[in-house]
Amino acid sequence: MNAPRIVVLSTGSELTAGRSQDTNSSWIANELFGMGFTVSKFVVLPDDPKAIESELRTLAALGTVQTPVLMIMTGGLGPTEDDYTLEVACRLNGVTSVESKVARQRIEAFYRLRGRNFQEFMQTAIRQVSVPEGSVILNNTVGIAPGFIVALGEHANLGCMPGVPGEMTEMFREEFSPWISKTYAAKELYSGLRFIWWMSESQFQKEFVSKEESIASGKVIWGVAAKRGYIRVSFQSDERTLVEELLRKLDAVYGAKSTGDVFEELPKLLIEKKIVVGTAESCTGGLIAKTFTDAPGSSAYFYGGVVSYDNSVKAGLLGVRQETLQEFGAVSPQTAREMAEGALVALGVDYSVSVTGIAGPGGGTAHKKVGLVFFGIGEKGGETEVHEHYFPFPRSSFREFAAHTGIYLLYNRLTRSV
Amino acid sequence: MNAPRIVVLSTGSELTAGRSQDTNSSWIANELFGMGFTVSKFVVLPDDPKAIESELRTLAALGTVQTPVLMIMTGGLGPTEDDYTLEVACRLNGVTSVESKVARQRIEAFYRLRGRNFQEFMQTAIRQVSVPEGSVILNNTVGIAPGFIVALGEHANLGCMPGVPGEMTEMFREEFSPWISKTYAAKELYSGLRFIWWMSESQFQKEFVSKEESIASGKVIWGVAAKRGYIRVSFQSDERTLVEELLRKLDAVYGAKSTGDVFEELPKLLIEKKIVVGTAESCTGGLIAKTFTDAPGSSAYFYGGVVSYDNSVKAGLLGVRQETLQEFGAVSPQTAREMAEGALVALGVDYSVSVTGIAGPGGGTAHKKVGLVFFGIGEKGGETEVHEHYFPFPRSSFREFAAHTGIYLLYNRLTRSV
Repeated sequence: MNAPRIVVLSTGSELTAGRSQDTNSSWIANELFGMGFTVSKFVVLPDDPKAIESELRTLAALGTVQTPVLMIMTGGLGPTEDDYTLEVACRLNGVTSVESKVARQRIEAFYRLRGRNFQEFMQTAIRQVSVPEGSVILNNTVGIAPGFIVALGEHANLGCMPGVPGEMTEMFREEFSPWISKTYAAKELYSGLRFIWWMSESQFQKEFVSKEESIASGKVIWGVAAKRGYIRVSFQSDERTLVEELLRKLDAVYGAKSTGDVFEELPKLLIEKKIVVGTAESCTGGLIAKTFTDAPGSSAYFYGGVVSYDNSVKAGLLGVRQETLQEFGAVSPQTAREMAEGALVALGVDYSVSVTGIAGPGGGTAHKKVGLVFFGIGEKGGETEVHEHYFPFPRSSFREFAAHTGIYLLYNRLTRSV
Repeated sequence: MNAPRIVVLSTGSELTAGRSQDTNSSWIANELFGMGFTVSKFVVLPDDPKAIESELRTLAALGTVQTPVLMIMTGGLGPTEDDYTLEVACRLNGVTSVESKVARQRIEAFYRLRGRNFQEFMQTAIRQVSVPEGSVILNNTVGIAPGFIVALGEHANLGCMPGVPGEMTEMFREEFSPWISKTYAAKELYSGLRFIWWMSESQFQKEFVSKEESIASGKVIWGVAAKRGYIRVSFQSDERTLVEELLRKLDAVYGAKSTGDVFEELPKLLIEKKIVVGTAESCTGGLIAKTFTDAPGSSAYFYGGVVSYDNSVKAGLLGVRQETLQEFGAVSPQTAREMAEGALVALGVDYSVSVTGIAGPGGGTAHKKVGLVFFGIGEKGGETEVHEHYFPFPRSSFREFAAHTGIYLLYNRLTRSV
């Protein structure tokens, strides 16, 4: 079939009441984008079977031979009263529901191992293994309820998956996406990405994107996401060389400020070079250490950190001198330097990152404004680098800017020196 | 007018491509819920003026005297080519655009202070101050582009706001929400919330919600959001006593596991009692310290923390004994105890929280599985408490479960003892 008009639907009254955030739709759209498909619309509906049925009917009616409709819906499959997706799908299609044998066997095997006490649970679980008659079954390898795909008329398909992200993502990747690729025509696409540090989306658009013929002509699709401290720029095209050329240009124009995904590359570099690192944080309050240890296996290169929020901890654990704190203040290049050097000793590491700044909203002065921040990069037996930055943003943004920048500065130091 | 059928729309190709997450719709829905309105649907569309115009026309046509339609749209107001919302709104309404005097004067005053060099910026900014003729203007006190409300026929209103969250939230609260309350009928609502610790949504629904007459009858609307380590339960009703009764029941049934918002209440308690605290973290890698310091003013009660990821740091900075680490292991009640006690001394604090566990995916053994975690709560001159928990979840969830639980355990200790 031709490339479809894709609508991604999420159901849940907690979503339309604003109590929960729909993350499934974005995730699915991003996967589809990588597969060479684009999404026309997201729709989020409350747990109201009539509203859902009416929406699906309206959307299905838009399908044509030229542009068939593919609806991808999450939510409403499971054990509770809110779970009416199966019923709605059957009614739309004029069929009854039947049990998925695979799902039933999986559940029976699972509960058999657990013995007699689980008979009641098993019965509840088995009630969830039905799918509309004649549908394509999407197996659930994580949870209980299977998903399914049903045809609604000749030019529309409806795929339903559970709303639990852990079940949905697995089901989409393993079962649904192969079906989509087999059923609909998509382009083969090449993509590439760069982080550009301390850059705004609008400045980047003005000074780079607006001058690129391959983007203006639509041969390359570009995307940009503003992160704290950097923008994430991506290019996608069916011509690989156009993507590669843009990446080369970015590196040439932005130099060391153009990087790959630093959060993936820094760990690889540290492991490869057998370098162990640690942190000394004031204003970021542990966020740099937390970011380092987000990655599984980080114990191979991250020894630890000191969160020296109070000056007594800067002095006591990191050996920052009282004179330094009194003469230059806690937020100063001198303190950042002593924190970094103190962390090398206290933590017994090869390299250290220190940060001290004014996160706000309080604490600023005429000379040291909220947003001012100093970083130290310490090296055992080497020179300590000190960097000054100014991130005049709300507290939580400031802290993320500072944490990401600290990690970038270490990455930058290592790529220059090792 | 009667209570409207409300549709919240967000526009942006970065949203439907899955590169950014739409957080505006949830935020708006949550505000409306608090004002006594419910949202029927969210729609997210790419930057495609035709698709947007057609969607708005279809929705506007659904309005009736009984149930008027209110569309609340964010995005597409600003300086770039993607910003066609004004144009679409004018076309739908058959009017031209006019300048907002308030917005123009604000910009002129702003740039006048900056001198001649900003003439070019001012011209760009002024191009953004237009609104459809005859619309209700929503002033923008944060950014440049004003929002507006236009009537589409007799039974539909369309409100447009910028997509930048900082501008939108201010505009919604200060300008748009008073207009909504004045224009449409809503109920006055009372609400209350509780955190219930280590509880699942489905268990809570089964053992509590299903037995409550005031919920079954629809007199009280309830909501639950699963967080890491707790569920956040909210009740809302136009009868205050029904909400209060449910909160009292929760406290009676769940005892110390039913709390208010611990992340707001703990800081108040620490400030009131002049208690200073610190952390000693292994598996959470700084997340507890980061969570403590999320709050402005946290330097009043949070002195600092040690992230002792490697055993050498547990020994070196926290004084955990080598024999303890060798005999019982880093993940043990004994190590948690010594970490908490070491933190009291190293950081010079009144109370400490320590945590050591196996975040996974690697590092588990037959006796100590991934998900096992020990907490210590230390008190200067008091007894150290040790708690064992098991959170068999993916790494990032595990770390949030552990961080929230650590903070809860300190809160729980303090509410028992001070």
